[in-house]
Amino acid sequence: MSEKRYLILAEGRSGDPHYGKTARGVIRYGPDPTVAVLDATRAGEEMAGIPVVATVEDALPHGPTTALVGVATQGGRFPPEWRELLKSCIAAGLDVENGLHEFLADDAELSELAAANGVELRDLRRPPADLNVPTGDNLALDARIVLTVGSDCAIGKKTVALELDLEARRRGLQSIFVPTGQTGIAIAGWGIAVDAVVSDFLAGAAERLVVEGHERGGELLFVEGQGSLSHPAYSGVTLGLVHGAAPHAFVLCHRAGSTEIEGYPGHPLPSLPDLVELHERIALPLRPARVACLALNTAHLGEAEARAAIAAASEETGLSADDPVRFGAGPLLDAVLQTLEAKAPAQAADH
Amino acid sequence: MSEKRYLILAEGRSGDPHYGKTARGVIRYGPDPTVAVLDATRAGEEMAGIPVVATVEDALPHGPTTALVGVATQGGRFPPEWRELLKSCIAAGLDVENGLHEFLADDAELSELAAANGVELRDLRRPPADLNVPTGDNLALDARIVLTVGSDCAIGKKTVALELDLEARRRGLQSIFVPTGQTGIAIAGWGIAVDAVVSDFLAGAAERLVVEGHERGGELLFVEGQGSLSHPAYSGVTLGLVHGAAPHAFVLCHRAGSTEIEGYPGHPLPSLPDLVELHERIALPLRPARVACLALNTAHLGEAEARAAIAAASEETGLSADDPVRFGAGPLLDAVLQTLEAKAPAQAADH
Repeated sequence: MSEKRYLILAEGRSGDPHYGKTARGVIRYGPDPTVAVLDATRAGEEMAGIPVVATVEDALPHGPTTALVGVATQGGRFPPEWRELLKSCIAAGLDVENGLHEFLADDAELSELAAANGVELRDLRRPPADLNVPTGDNLALDARIVLTVGSDCAIGKKTVALELDLEARRRGLQSIFVPTGQTGIAIAGWGIAVDAVVSDFLAGAAERLVVEGHERGGELLFVEGQGSLSHPAYSGVTLGLVHGAAPHAFVLCHRAGSTEIEGYPGHPLPSLPDLVELHERIALPLRPARVACLALNTAHLGEAEARAAIAAASEETGLSADDPVRFGAGPLLDAVLQTLEAKAPAQAADH
Repeated sequence: MSEKRYLILAEGRSGDPHYGKTARGVIRYGPDPTVAVLDATRAGEEMAGIPVVATVEDALPHGPTTALVGVATQGGRFPPEWRELLKSCIAAGLDVENGLHEFLADDAELSELAAANGVELRDLRRPPADLNVPTGDNLALDARIVLTVGSDCAIGKKTVALELDLEARRRGLQSIFVPTGQTGIAIAGWGIAVDAVVSDFLAGAAERLVVEGHERGGELLFVEGQGSLSHPAYSGVTLGLVHGAAPHAFVLCHRAGSTEIEGYPGHPLPSLPDLVELHERIALPLRPARVACLALNTAHLGEAEARAAIAAASEETGLSADDPVRFGAGPLLDAVLQTLEAKAPAQAADH
């Protein structure tokens, strides 16, 4: 049994679905319990039943062993005011896990403090040192690979992969969730943050992840997607992941009603049919892949509106659609398995 | 006037158009003279009029000041036998410029030796430390941006950008070549190797390059392309560059007659019309971009075959086509300028 108990650091962000997504993912899907969330702006409240505290001192009575940096920041840098917070955690004897692009273990002051206090600094996004380009093992693997993709960032690609994997395992399938980002790594305990690798090795890192997923016993791999092919900042990560993971099928995620890239005003989202066709078209010709179904994020809608949005998306694309978090992942898993069983069509048929 | 004189290290690769492309690019387009090429397998021969020598000792009478690692390797690592060669260069008092992913300055032994001999180790692919995601400056820039793209790697995207820039400057235009890879950096003396940046910052690095190109006086920017949208290893780099550089027009490069990705047997190239449409479709909706023309690499063909291949490519796509290295860059520059002058059409028209 794991002895790890998290204090999640989410200062100013615990209520934010985008920048607080690491906190939410770990609380919901992680194997290790979270005993407190630190966010002085909401101290005294609860987050998913977990007490929100103002300071590390206030968290200690709850018995944490490990502080997890539970926020994302644009560019992945630490806000300067976080240094004092991290020092408090280390001084209090907590290990620190960090998913930002700035690595704690490379910081001389924090490293010395950690050594003096006998705690570990773990940088979840630090890539392996020996990455390279793909070898072709991705195409030779005896496993069925499913990649979640989407119209934008932070709309549920990781969550959908996790829910589909859970449902598949409930049915007795040899399924595994393949983590490609810091939160997925915190949840699964392995993985590579593909957005942190040298660009030339993006596809190679993705290939290594599906190979490892298979070695870990996965016959059915649900790979966590990243970014979006139409995202002005992160599209490169997405395409490298598409070509390196070499999926047999995509699950297309979309936040119901969104029409613009979040945080990039004026950048429109392509229509769902356009996104379906673009993904199928850009898959490797040696590994044609179909979009199996649509996963709609309807968390911001009432139930009737959610049902209507799902029906409309299905109508617009001719594909199964559902919100697997809200209504269960069964119907989408059915669609995925059906797509995997069907012989993948020659890609040329789409042109 | 520059005092730099290159010895290009191309051991075993000076005759290889792919892995020897750094050597060829610097000899042809660099402002600093190359006085010798080191390749024991071809010692005594000449490369573009420059003597090929077997050892560093043999090169010294030619008066080099700087050894340039003039090869590419898969994965960008140093073959182990190169360590002795690099040590000989340093011991002989030569600075060393290196474009591989492995950084010489991070190697303790080589760094110490360099310090002891008073020479510099310059890693051309080392990214700036302060990269981030794009800010939107790429879309606000008062410049016309042209990106070379292609059906594969190592087919002439850099060379075409250099030739178009030279021709534009000959005509008195305020044009600049924007380097995005190690050879381009060696030639131009500035730039970022986008394939060496952390994937999340790919588009941000590309944006920074076009901003710098404009600051350096460019009203017309010819951006060196990387990889290919359909390349199984490097497509992520390509798409990040497309979205970060935000070109107004593409020049599509292709090696006449190629049908497969080099080094990836069985991976077919899309047809030229498919590549044209894919690039136009994947451009940012806020910056619709047309493929202005096709640059065909016909170096391996006789002249009549080359002319026929150019005519066929033009016929197949309805676009101007030429081999700008062989027959001059004038006609393709005309096509580029015409495309830039035409009002960019709404991207939706392609769907």
